[in-house]
Amino acid sequence: MRIAVIQGSARNGGNTEELTRLVLEGIPYTNIVLREKEIKPIRDQRHDEGGFDPVDDDYDDLILQVLEHDILIFATPVYWYGASGLMKNFIDRWSQSLRDVRFNFKEQMAAKTAYAVVVGGDNPRIKALPLIQQLQYTFDFVGLPFSGYVIGKGSKPGEVLKDARAVRDAATLNAELRKAEPVAVNRS
Amino acid sequence: MRIAVIQGSARNGGNTEELTRLVLEGIPYTNIVLREKEIKPIRDQRHDEGGFDPVDDDYDDLILQVLEHDILIFATPVYWYGASGLMKNFIDRWSQSLRDVRFNFKEQMAAKTAYAVVVGGDNPRIKALPLIQQLQYTFDFVGLPFSGYVIGKGSKPGEVLKDARAVRDAATLNAELRKAEPVAVNRS
Amino acid sequence: MRIAVIQGSARNGGNTEELTRLVLEGIPYTNIVLREKEIKPIRDQRHDEGGFDPVDDDYDDLILQVLEHDILIFATPVYWYGASGLMKNFIDRWSQSLRDVRFNFKEQMAAKTAYAVVVGGDNPRIKALPLIQQLQYTFDFVGLPFSGYVIGKGSKPGEVLKDARAVRDAATLNAELRKAEPVAVNRS
Amino acid sequence: MRIAVIQGSARNGGNTEELTRLVLEGIPYTNIVLREKEIKPIRDQRHDEGGFDPVDDDYDDLILQVLEHDILIFATPVYWYGASGLMKNFIDRWSQSLRDVRFNFKEQMAAKTAYAVVVGGDNPRIKALPLIQQLQYTFDFVGLPFSGYVIGKGSKPGEVLKDARAVRDAATLNAELRKAEPVAVNRS
Repeated sequence: MRIAVIQGSARNGGNTEELTRLVLEGIPYTNIVLREKEIKPIRDQRHDEGGFDPVDDDYDDLILQVLEHDILIFATPVYWYGASGLMKNFIDRWSQSLRDVRFNFKEQMAAKTAYAVVVGGDNPRIKALPLIQQLQYTFDFVGLPFSGYVIGKGSKPGEVLKDARAVRDAATLNAELRKAEPVAVNRS
Repeated sequence: MRIAVIQGSARNGGNTEELTRLVLEGIPYTNIVLREKEIKPIRDQRHDEGGFDPVDDDYDDLILQVLEHDILIFATPVYWYGASGLMKNFIDRWSQSLRDVRFNFKEQMAAKTAYAVVVGGDNPRIKALPLIQQLQYTFDFVGLPFSGYVIGKGSKPGEVLKDARAVRDAATLNAELRKAEPVAVNRS
Repeated sequence: MRIAVIQGSARNGGNTEELTRLVLEGIPYTNIVLREKEIKPIRDQRHDEGGFDPVDDDYDDLILQVLEHDILIFATPVYWYGASGLMKNFIDRWSQSLRDVRFNFKEQMAAKTAYAVVVGGDNPRIKALPLIQQLQYTFDFVGLPFSGYVIGKGSKPGEVLKDARAVRDAATLNAELRKAEPVAVNRS
Repeated sequence: MRIAVIQGSARNGGNTEELTRLVLEGIPYTNIVLREKEIKPIRDQRHDEGGFDPVDDDYDDLILQVLEHDILIFATPVYWYGASGLMKNFIDRWSQSLRDVRFNFKEQMAAKTAYAVVVGGDNPRIKALPLIQQLQYTFDFVGLPFSGYVIGKGSKPGEVLKDARAVRDAATLNAELRKAEPVAVNRS
């Protein structure tokens, strides 16, 4: 199985990345770091006669890369009780992929499986639950099974590593992913 | 009272704008259209020694404009069960304003009142509830009272105008806003 | 269409009953007042060899009565952010009806339509949303379409009648129900 | 610290009890089994001149027993996406305790800490989230800190013991409770 992390963190080495690192320890995976790419907000042309115009940014390349994987790990800090704007813009653009004639987006997504890793500073095991519910609705829409999530608590650098429950949950997810016999994806 | 709409819609004349138009009919207000501005995703420098670097985009101007108003109407389409990425990036940047020494962001926000206008295509009166809960948590964080919300259903252009309940709710909110004696804000 | 109110209020003439009264004004309906009946908590015998034993209370009579109707209006005060225990016990017993050989409970429920009327004292338009989500999951389980809900705010007697939005929403639902050409059900 | 389990399961040895047993393994605690007691639905007399009449059932004895403990573990199956009716009736009656002149209910509850153990058959890590949110609101109302929850998946007898994540979470909570130096409460 080919694993991709879709990393929505807005800083290098932040808590979300730390927890994601634990989840993937010793496992080959593709790391898609959204903040290193340019993803424009969707321009809603669903109802335009000609459909969506091509957009001059990195989304198209990223989504093609995502589609090459079997297990998708959506990693995002809990910013203002939701996914980061980086992650949100990426997901918003799926509306464009749903109309992309080069592939059947729903069909391809439905053949994968998704996990979420979210880290927040303000009582995330309660206040990130709306975010988890949104991810469920989102994955349901494209038929992508939502196989599990890890919630971590942390704000200052490194703090999530002191959240014993999150660390333990990360280790369990790590074991689960290892069972999926992960292999690296080499991009030409 | 000075009213501002913070418009997160990603297309001109879409359902969210149509419903917002009904809410504000005959009322002077400032229309802040996020898609016409550039708002970069937050670069999380909360824990950097020097704090946030200045960002070369429109956020700073927009937040100063927002702060001049007493009633804030957050209008957003329900994209993938959350606020649009445009709106999310705008709110994410509040983390920067919280550390801005020119003003006390929480104190100023706490003196205002907020409403939300959200329009979605997929059963929004149920599936937009996590979004409403997130807005509540968000407004709670800065002490901003959340005085009401209108949920509309619509996908194709103009469809929300056939959602009798949304149209009626918009009319009621319109009456409520008129009572607040809205006045225009002139920017030099 | 035959309309039944399933009334979960725990006092006579309380706010939930007041708001329900507005919803049904001028409309024939069957009023099933749970507090006037005895409904024991479910004794979970789903996994017992012989299945559920008959229970000596009013549930069986009530569910047969419910099944005679086409539109079900679940009216409940928001007690501790959920349905009243009266309502909860009634719904819990559906697990028994699912195994009742006299009828196909899911099939019959799926042919009806449901509404909810809920009244709470503590910011119900936000804090009753988990209850609305539970009702959605519950109705989904039996295939019962959830066609709308009215949330009212009130604690002291009569207070909900001062909640202009709830009163208006009740009037709209009243108009919607009238269009369904309601007829009375006479029980022998 | 004195620990009480408030057990809302509706069958002996069901999954909720199994998971609770793991949580409390080797720890002295008081087991309050709601189904073995009679707890009538609340009769809402908050607004009656004379307040609440005494009720002839086991609630009064139970709440006095609960108040003798420092750590409260609310264990409930997820029935129809909420707490069992047994648990709900017990919590609904808190409205009566809030007006009980023999003690300051809020003050006493605020000095304790709460955990929840919930087990459901239908995707509980998503569909029990509204229940978790309700518990948070409920505990917030009386100032009771909500220190953690364990969600298990199970329907058939013993099934939750195959839910590796739940078993692991139970072990972690067990370790956390042991650190609180639990002592037995002897009732005369």
